Amino acid sequence: MTDRALALTQQLIAIDSTTPADGGCQGLMIARLEKLGFRIERMRHGDVDNFWARRGNSGPLVCFAGHTDVVPTGPRERWHSAPFAPTLRDGMLYGRGAADMKASLAGFVVAIEDFVAAHPNHPGSIALLITSDEEGPAIDGTVRVVETLAARAERIDYCIVGEPTSSARFGDTIKNGRRGSLSGALTIHGKQGHIAYPHLARNPIHLTAPALTELAATEWDQGNAYFPPTTWQVSNIHAGTGATNVIPGELTLQFNFRFGTASTAESLRQRVEAILNRHGLDYTLHWTLSGKPFLTEPGTLSQALSAAISAETGVSPELSTTGGTSDGRFIADICPQVVEFGPINATIHQLNECVAVEDVAKLAGIYRRTLENLLL
Amino acid sequence: MTDRALALTQQLIAIDSTTPADGGCQGLMIARLEKLGFRIERMRHGDVDNFWARRGNSGPLVCFAGHTDVVPTGPRERWHSAPFAPTLRDGMLYGRGAADMKASLAGFVVAIEDFVAAHPNHPGSIALLITSDEEGPAIDGTVRVVETLAARAERIDYCIVGEPTSSARFGDTIKNGRRGSLSGALTIHGKQGHIAYPHLARNPIHLTAPALTELAATEWDQGNAYFPPTTWQVSNIHAGTGATNVIPGELTLQFNFRFGTASTAESLRQRVEAILNRHGLDYTLHWTLSGKPFLTEPGTLSQALSAAISAETGVSPELSTTGGTSDGRFIADICPQVVEFGPINATIHQLNECVAVEDVAKLAGIYRRTLENLLL
Ligand SMILES: [Zn+2]
Ligand SMILES: [Zn+2]
Repeated sequence: MTDRALALTQQLIAIDSTTPADGGCQGLMIARLEKLGFRIERMRHGDVDNFWARRGNSGPLVCFAGHTDVVPTGPRERWHSAPFAPTLRDGMLYGRGAADMKASLAGFVVAIEDFVAAHPNHPGSIALLITSDEEGPAIDGTVRVVETLAARAERIDYCIVGEPTSSARFGDTIKNGRRGSLSGALTIHGKQGHIAYPHLARNPIHLTAPALTELAATEWDQGNAYFPPTTWQVSNIHAGTGATNVIPGELTLQFNFRFGTASTAESLRQRVEAILNRHGLDYTLHWTLSGKPFLTEPGTLSQALSAAISAETGVSPELSTTGGTSDGRFIADICPQVVEFGPINATIHQLNECVAVEDVAKLAGIYRRTLENLLL
Repeated sequence: MTDRALALTQQLIAIDSTTPADGGCQGLMIARLEKLGFRIERMRHGDVDNFWARRGNSGPLVCFAGHTDVVPTGPRERWHSAPFAPTLRDGMLYGRGAADMKASLAGFVVAIEDFVAAHPNHPGSIALLITSDEEGPAIDGTVRVVETLAARAERIDYCIVGEPTSSARFGDTIKNGRRGSLSGALTIHGKQGHIAYPHLARNPIHLTAPALTELAATEWDQGNAYFPPTTWQVSNIHAGTGATNVIPGELTLQFNFRFGTASTAESLRQRVEAILNRHGLDYTLHWTLSGKPFLTEPGTLSQALSAAISAETGVSPELSTTGGTSDGRFIADICPQVVEFGPINATIHQLNECVAVEDVAKLAGIYRRTLENLLL
């Protein structure tokens, strides 16, 4: 098993699939899956390649989800070996996408091959949901496949996303949820004037300061058993044209919430607007909800995955909801249990991205054991 | 007298003296003053023409001060008549500089001609201090002439600056002082980070808000008999590169004080820094004192000028210290009594600048009567 998972990871790294390109990675996977009797549906949207593959008709349906696209390499001369030339050195496999997430994709395929070889008439169904725009705008990828599945009432029972979740040690972390992200673009309207005559103007900088102070000091929630407290941060504030004798007419400000299930997007919106209103501000505010939080409470899936990790590595994983957003938030719409598990993420999105060779083999084993725990 | 003041104003307007150009205005004035026995000292610094002219050796020395430069015309097609073609229409004289301050320059010359004709052996001395960069950076103009006079211990007893101080009605306002202007360029240092991990960053926008709130709410002083309360205004605030997922590393802010004699520049500096320090901010702050306040308490000069205005117009002027800065702040260094008086300022620095024809004649009469009140 070792050699096949490593070999497929190397094959996938050798393909330049800088987002949103797939570059043929999905074709490699599909060729292997077709041999196992999977029904393949390619779903290309815009310039994004996606596919949905399923083996079996009955429930439960276990799905592996992931992306073939990778982030740009950055300056190639600063890589010790070429980013798309998979290179083994000191027990590590180097290359763009090694950890995020071509080792996971190879692990999916090899795990399924081994499982199907041992249990050709397994109960339930196995599926793969693969996209090539997770690292890009995430518009024509998982979102579209999920829409298609939802439209025909095809639901997933258990989904394992192959994102690199391990932190200090391979196997130490399963993500069982992610925070949501809610953004606001705020304009405070004042009245322009000459700096020597402030009584004829309304300075939006001065008007905004007390509300900004209150917003920055607000405790939005205390978090809960699964999520840390919600955070609010301003990323940009601008007022003034550069002229030092002019009171500007307006101030613009962009902010972002990262929030768990202790708050809702709607409650956060209402509370921000209440503060702005209480300070008597004349404002325009545009909201963007880029991701609802999702949470999979400990249960069948997390237990099956944890047991597989422990059996393969001896490590007892922790459940965590920290970090940025992932495609898990979209899948959660049609799947009650979504978790994420994959290699150590220390080098992802960086120069000289790598994965430990021994972890590549173990990862395929973990995914296979998870299938066994869920379907047998 | 009427015709001569109007004619000289028209001659001066016909010269394009867009700052810092003089364009020959000073030559016109000097030719008339030389005939009256004035000793002329041209003092050109850089590309700025200035002159100092004096008649008499004894005290007291009465000085008229002003500038021949004018602000740019703005879009010429929006002027009803060409800006440098003096045009009479409905009792008004139109042209760039009509009110700021070529009518005053003509008034100075004609007033002195009339006064000297009647009193060729007048007691005391008369002087003119004329520059061509009052509307520009104000570096190579009045400042340099005052330095030269100070270096040879030549002091002025009474100075009348010809700025257009009248507001609703000609004669209604004498400026007996001006507020000072103190500016600060502030940078608040934080620590850049990803918006999803605020605990690893220090957001300078959040850190600044409470101090900004306090600064904006501070009563710096209550003003005094001569000056309104000191004001503090932020003209510019900027932080963030536009990326909405990044907590910026620093925030920049520019602010300005307009202050009277109830505060000093030093006390304001100390109080701002005390507030920033109390809020525990890591900051860099550069100060610029662009003008100290000056004040001429009611006395000989303001009384002589007020009486002249009342006699010529029937209006009783008020003393005021409002408005922006003027070259009076520099002259105050070598002159204990400085006031400003001139035409209605409603159209200055605008399209279709104008002055009432009847005010041009009266203005020369007021300056002549002031000389009489001070020297006879
Ligand atoms: Zn990824
Ligand atoms: Zn002026």
